[in-house]
Amino acid sequence: MRISELARRAGVSVATTKYYLREGLLPGGAATARNQASYDEGHLHRLRLIRALREVGGLDIRAIRAVIQAIEDEGLSRHELFGVAQWALDDRTGGDSENVPADVARARREVDAFITELGWDVDSEAPARHALADALVALWRLGRAGGAEHFRPYAAAADAMASWEVPAIPADEPRGLAVERLIVGTVIYEAAFVALRRLAHEHQSARQAAPTRAP
Amino acid sequence: MRISELARRAGVSVATTKYYLREGLLPGGAATARNQASYDEGHLHRLRLIRALREVGGLDIRAIRAVIQAIEDEGLSRHELFGVAQWALDDRTGGDSENVPADVARARREVDAFITELGWDVDSEAPARHALADALVALWRLGRAGGAEHFRPYAAAADAMASWEVPAIPADEPRGLAVERLIVGTVIYEAAFVALRRLAHEHQSARQAAPTRAP
Repeated sequence: MRISELARRAGVSVATTKYYLREGLLPGGAATARNQASYDEGHLHRLRLIRALREVGGLDIRAIRAVIQAIEDEGLSRHELFGVAQWALDDRTGGDSENVPADVARARREVDAFITELGWDVDSEAPARHALADALVALWRLGRAGGAEHFRPYAAAADAMASWEVPAIPADEPRGLAVERLIVGTVIYEAAFVALRRLAHEHQSARQAAPTRAP
Repeated sequence: MRISELARRAGVSVATTKYYLREGLLPGGAATARNQASYDEGHLHRLRLIRALREVGGLDIRAIRAVIQAIEDEGLSRHELFGVAQWALDDRTGGDSENVPADVARARREVDAFITELGWDVDSEAPARHALADALVALWRLGRAGGAEHFRPYAAAADAMASWEVPAIPADEPRGLAVERLIVGTVIYEAAFVALRRLAHEHQSARQAAPTRAP
């Protein structure tokens, strides 16, 4: 197909498609004539993936590039790809540990101890550790006492969810497809769960409020 | 306390604090002398809340204003505040229904039918419905077949979570504190759960990978 059809079917503009081509996120098409190239279903799939990562996942170009490079890097194991995906989705790092505020440093130690106590096997520099520590610091700065045990019921729910999500990616699935499923599963189902949790809050609040509204 | 101490204790700059004062997000202090005002623990709590909503929740000034107005509006019931919080956290609306792409319109119908089938009592215009429809459209545009039933296990997990989260706000708690707890619970624990789910993915992936790494 021509670039105009490719763009239309993926739901992006031709200008945006050309931008991804220039950035190397989308491989070039097969040359069919001077200044013309033909694109296939593989290009369409890639373009839809980029769009989903941008619009659903909120990833910037740099993060999208990291994900695509991981998809193309056959030397990475499936497990290593989880790490790449995490780093692409959230590039926060520990930063310069000399300049970390005291409460942030304390929250990181609390989170690390909590993860250890849970028995979870995760990288000591996983960005999500810092994200969790940031959430704990936010609680403290609002005057909440206590430590990472605030998160215990959420950790149990997250582990239960991950225990059926991770095996849902078939071990024998083609590598590119498996990685895409992993990214999509992380990004899109995360957005879906957040939306569902907010709807469930409203539902449970309505259930609580109902008795006082009844005659 | 003076504005300099207020800002320091909340972890924001004096310039940012003055900006919130000008914007009316933070009430003025008690005048103690010409060009000087005194602030109390209430100001500190409010400033920490604004900071958490901005930095943890990613809310813009307009959304923060809506949340604070809801906190101050004694005429709203607790249940109505859930709605205000949802709208502040996500202001996406159905938009001009004439111009909605066909797949988005179909996804919204699917999501509405799904919510009805779940028996959830939520507003027909709740922003999270649109967020969930957007997630479904993203799946379709990546070539996934099927409808909102993709979300069924996530809906069950969300409802289970909300069923202990919502009653955790004591019914007799002072109104301002209850609302703050609701917002913080939605925003900060959402961030915490997202982080924990990513850590749990890594842990579950490591468990799957472990047998092949062992000798």
